[in-house]
Amino acid sequence: MKDEIKHIVDQAGQKARRAARVIAAADSRQKNDALLAIAERIDAAADAILAANAVDLQHARDKGIADALYDRLELTPARMQGMTEGLRQIVKLPDPVGALGAQTIQPSGLRIGKMRVPLGVIGIIYESRPNVTADTAALCIKSGNAAILRGGSEAIESNKAIADCIGQGLKDAGLDTSVVQLIPVTDRNVVGCLIQSTEYVDVIVPRGGKSLVARIAAEARVPVIKHLEGVCHVFVDEAADLNKAVAVAVNSKTFRYGICGAMETLLVAEPVAVRFLPLVKSQLDKHEVELRGCEQTCSILNGIAKADEDDWTAEYLAPILSIRVVDGLNQAIDHIAEYGSGHTDAIVTESLQAADKFQRLVDSSSVMLNAATCFADGFQYGLGAEIGISTDKLHVRGPVGLEGLTTEKYLVTGDGTIRN
Amino acid sequence: MKDEIKHIVDQAGQKARRAARVIAAADSRQKNDALLAIAERIDAAADAILAANAVDLQHARDKGIADALYDRLELTPARMQGMTEGLRQIVKLPDPVGALGAQTIQPSGLRIGKMRVPLGVIGIIYESRPNVTADTAALCIKSGNAAILRGGSEAIESNKAIADCIGQGLKDAGLDTSVVQLIPVTDRNVVGCLIQSTEYVDVIVPRGGKSLVARIAAEARVPVIKHLEGVCHVFVDEAADLNKAVAVAVNSKTFRYGICGAMETLLVAEPVAVRFLPLVKSQLDKHEVELRGCEQTCSILNGIAKADEDDWTAEYLAPILSIRVVDGLNQAIDHIAEYGSGHTDAIVTESLQAADKFQRLVDSSSVMLNAATCFADGFQYGLGAEIGISTDKLHVRGPVGLEGLTTEKYLVTGDGTIRN
Repeated sequence: MKDEIKHIVDQAGQKARRAARVIAAADSRQKNDALLAIAERIDAAADAILAANAVDLQHARDKGIADALYDRLELTPARMQGMTEGLRQIVKLPDPVGALGAQTIQPSGLRIGKMRVPLGVIGIIYESRPNVTADTAALCIKSGNAAILRGGSEAIESNKAIADCIGQGLKDAGLDTSVVQLIPVTDRNVVGCLIQSTEYVDVIVPRGGKSLVARIAAEARVPVIKHLEGVCHVFVDEAADLNKAVAVAVNSKTFRYGICGAMETLLVAEPVAVRFLPLVKSQLDKHEVELRGCEQTCSILNGIAKADEDDWTAEYLAPILSIRVVDGLNQAIDHIAEYGSGHTDAIVTESLQAADKFQRLVDSSSVMLNAATCFADGFQYGLGAEIGISTDKLHVRGPVGLEGLTTEKYLVTGDGTIRN
Repeated sequence: MKDEIKHIVDQAGQKARRAARVIAAADSRQKNDALLAIAERIDAAADAILAANAVDLQHARDKGIADALYDRLELTPARMQGMTEGLRQIVKLPDPVGALGAQTIQPSGLRIGKMRVPLGVIGIIYESRPNVTADTAALCIKSGNAAILRGGSEAIESNKAIADCIGQGLKDAGLDTSVVQLIPVTDRNVVGCLIQSTEYVDVIVPRGGKSLVARIAAEARVPVIKHLEGVCHVFVDEAADLNKAVAVAVNSKTFRYGICGAMETLLVAEPVAVRFLPLVKSQLDKHEVELRGCEQTCSILNGIAKADEDDWTAEYLAPILSIRVVDGLNQAIDHIAEYGSGHTDAIVTESLQAADKFQRLVDSSSVMLNAATCFADGFQYGLGAEIGISTDKLHVRGPVGLEGLTTEKYLVTGDGTIRN
């Protein structure tokens, strides 16, 4: 069976390699035509897609899956509309491919510049949400890449129905239907084969829970653009405007508990702790956020639980917050270096020097000043689209938009120039 | 034994993680002071380094190693001088760390920009040449990274002597001596541990032959910036100026046979083959380059060997050249896609349309127009330094200078800004 699966994945890989050259050569208009055609095909096939989704939902009910998973699996007319709107928005984004940066003239007379080009073949591994099929396909097409999709087995019928529309839309635009391929087999070995396929796949983008991503990262031979976790901090400096600090801290925690940019630990400079902590607590109490504090925090805020060592590394994704009083800026930076996840961390201060030091020395994908951590998002950063947030340092870091799915090559121009 | 080695590598990793924060925070002046101090220490210890090198050379002779390897291992006064000159040149390069790119204002009022920052801890795995110890240490220091060096066992005494000078120079500049650590153990398991050490090492840069690099790439869990091979092409288009074409082709092959940017296959458009091939042959004959041609080439150039399938993928690194006559531009692009290594490929043409198509569609780290492939080099591109040439697509592609050893983080600036 494993050999059969490998054969299926290899065949998809070979087709994707060929299709990658087609989509890399396509101009913006052709790619946009394909995206619009896919949106039309999805609109036209709405009933068929919802019927396929109903089959998946029935299987899910038969298996007794959890409510949260069921919710993610379900396609509603509103979600269908969101999916095609998303496609049409990607049409409006600038095409990253072919952009040529500044060129320099070297002593040899050569002109040197860099041109942005697609990565090649992108493998997307995701879980239950069927709309990811359309979203990621669209981002790959626009960025000039071929895609091999491997969705969750629980969404296979929905994904197949959407993939059919993608194939038809590509064909409508005169493009190779293999530009986007959904692996139609639900066998678990597909993932194992895909992440080992260095010959045919240039990068893997896993979209799912931490355990899926961690497993893929541990076993992949193909490079992975991955998001592991967001243990985000807000540090209230001694030079903070405490009104801004309360607003930023409360928003960072409560905007949405389940997002990776949510604050999980609040660090407070000792000189302002006695004034600040009761202020922020009164606001957080309104949201019924459970507080877990260091010893000093507990002595200032009566009746809250004591944080233990695990609380400093916990990604709660829930109305729970750990709070630590630190000596000042340096200890805050040390705490983040020791316990943070390198996702997003913020300082609240009116001191230029403190702001500069924090922004230079905190080694996270986003370092914020007087802004809520929940802004960590490709749309908020003006990327126009987001395939995920990378907590890796290499290739792409932070919110990943179309540019993160491309690379650059050197263009070198001479006039019969030779080297002596 | 394996556990002991893992312990040694882990300890070095822990120290490197701490030292990485020190060197990341160091300003340009302190880093430059360290580089100058290291150069002085190496100058002052020249006799001791040459004596250590003599021990390595004696061991090498006892073992009967090959002449080429012996040559790479040997430090001469001239090479010693080259080493310290290299350090002083890196002092003059601009510091990549802290550079802040263009910032945008988003609808939320947030100001978004990207700051260039070090990667963290870089593991360097290299073979016999002891001067790599100083070169790579200097590039890591200047780019604000900590380095863990693992040199070839045959050069261990030379490397230790140079590493002593590096440690002293770091200390002279008031920096943590753990910023650059040489693993003093020659056990082969060191490499295995280092490339698995995702906790302590951010990227591995192997510098050595193809078999070393391929093995590391196959086994590493830490991301690798790697160079595999350069099977470089020159395509002589039907619209080429044949004088330029001869100059570019001959220079691409004969500038130096052993460099990765040397041309290995010459592609010639059919309409100009009869005129061009005898011209280029007469020049290549002067260099005694062995020619291996496709059928059509052999029919034009009498008495040359027939190329077989393996010749199209061979990285000769020798005075041998394979030649193929192609229909024209499209077949040249197809040939490069099928047989090339994605390193450097050139077109010679006076046609704007052919040049544009070739530069857009050839998916190599450098795509050249009317220039010799042997220019593929960080110094020639104005990078000022080079740690290698990446044939990967992710993170950094083509010649890797200081910037390739850094990453970017988002700086997000508000004024108590919250998300609604």
